Amino acid sequence: MNIVVIGIGLIGGSFAKDAKAVHPGATIVGIDKNESHVTEALELKIIDEGGDYDALESADIVFVSIPVDALLVELPKILDAVGDETVVIDAGSTKAHICQAVSNHPKRRNFMACHPIAGTEFSGPSAAILGLYEGKTNIICEVEKTAFKLQERALELFQKLKMRIRYMNPVAHDKHIAYVSHLSHISSFMLGKTVIEKEKNERDIFDMAGSGFESTVRLAKSSPDMWTPIFEQNRENVVETLQEYIQNLEGFKQLLLDEDFENVHKAMSDTNRIKQILKGIPLTKI
Amino acid sequence: MNIVVIGIGLIGGSFAKDAKAVHPGATIVGIDKNESHVTEALELKIIDEGGDYDALESADIVFVSIPVDALLVELPKILDAVGDETVVIDAGSTKAHICQAVSNHPKRRNFMACHPIAGTEFSGPSAAILGLYEGKTNIICEVEKTAFKLQERALELFQKLKMRIRYMNPVAHDKHIAYVSHLSHISSFMLGKTVIEKEKNERDIFDMAGSGFESTVRLAKSSPDMWTPIFEQNRENVVETLQEYIQNLEGFKQLLLDEDFENVHKAMSDTNRIKQILKGIPLTKI
Repeated sequence: MNIVVIGIGLIGGSFAKDAKAVHPGATIVGIDKNESHVTEALELKIIDEGGDYDALESADIVFVSIPVDALLVELPKILDAVGDETVVIDAGSTKAHICQAVSNHPKRRNFMACHPIAGTEFSGPSAAILGLYEGKTNIICEVEKTAFKLQERALELFQKLKMRIRYMNPVAHDKHIAYVSHLSHISSFMLGKTVIEKEKNERDIFDMAGSGFESTVRLAKSSPDMWTPIFEQNRENVVETLQEYIQNLEGFKQLLLDEDFENVHKAMSDTNRIKQILKGIPLTKI
Repeated sequence: MNIVVIGIGLIGGSFAKDAKAVHPGATIVGIDKNESHVTEALELKIIDEGGDYDALESADIVFVSIPVDALLVELPKILDAVGDETVVIDAGSTKAHICQAVSNHPKRRNFMACHPIAGTEFSGPSAAILGLYEGKTNIICEVEKTAFKLQERALELFQKLKMRIRYMNPVAHDKHIAYVSHLSHISSFMLGKTVIEKEKNERDIFDMAGSGFESTVRLAKSSPDMWTPIFEQNRENVVETLQEYIQNLEGFKQLLLDEDFENVHKAMSDTNRIKQILKGIPLTKI
């Protein structure tokens, strides 16, 4: 089996490792506009060889894990270059613009729009993790637009990687993901910003911060290169979630100003049921 | 050595476990207004026996880990009951009101105001962890008001538990801790609230949420009974941090509305240095 991974960072590198683990005989070709990523991935034995789009025609599976702004530009070119029997899977965190960008492409049937909900706050080939996708959800959009035989090949691989599959339309995907992923990143980045601005003397943060703070600002370590285009493509949904979040924070602040501690308690109690909801989330055990 | 732990939850129970580990010969008496906590702590062998304030007179060390509103009421009574050679250590997440509450107590010298920055989002004796305090920061306020010999006894124990000691005045403690702890909890609770409200169909949260969401809403599992009085006592500082946080979120929202993605990128890049700051935080490895 010939597998090509375009963009060999955390997501692509982990996919390469996992794919190799379930298909030891496969050849994994890595393509990255950053040459040092290719070199690093070769050294780490994440890929078997480097390559360019010429490698796409004979590929069985192409996995594209690049920032979503690059996806809009590259995906049509990738589809131009693949063979009739190639399935192209993306891993973009937004889906509406991406599905739109290739909706009229003559090889639309070779594309499967995916969003594997997996990752960490780190990036680059060295951040790749074997088993990253195990138990994780993979959201597939517009599955009916992918050729049946190619769907089958992709789904077989996802099954071997032990992913949970969910089908959704791209507009619904972008709306929901704004709440459970994009908003978390903004809340974390702005929390980090607030504390850094106030605590000019970083010693104080260092000494007083505990694991709770670390947990809530963990996502503020994420890559701005990856996240800026996500916020750009999902701007309307993100602004809406942000508005609601700010309203809830304002409401909580008002309760404090009013010294209405009964309702402060109630606001927290009502949210405590997140415990039950979270129990179902498959986490990366690292 | 006689050690009394008042409030046998996560914090008190972990302290009891750690104290026993470094002083195997010590007798640990547990006191809790919730009788089931005493029973559970006995079953889990976290404490050697249950007791009441009569046990305080002969205690060498009393560790008080109860919600901060209860601390204001109980701490003077505890000091009334202890012997001249007893050191009373609290673990309250606020310090100004607590130090104030006992500032004129005739046994003020028997009290050491502490805030060990340790914990998880769980509570109760079953949440107690051996080694919770290892490498964690313990902030001690108004150390000069504690009798020298009693300071020494407490510090010797903290050293055995491998805690890092920092001295701070109670007003500065409350101001800084609002940023690195209290605000994180509100940001997390309100994030949970925003998502729960929107996603009435919890299946969607369950399926689409990843480890990033779990990390940012982890603190929303925290106990409202513990946190309401913390927010009450540190209300002014918390409102101020919340105001700054909301302003930063509003600023980010405005950048999105203006489609100013260069500054969206910059806001995230500037905050990325939280990585370096976080490297210094000792985390609970669980």
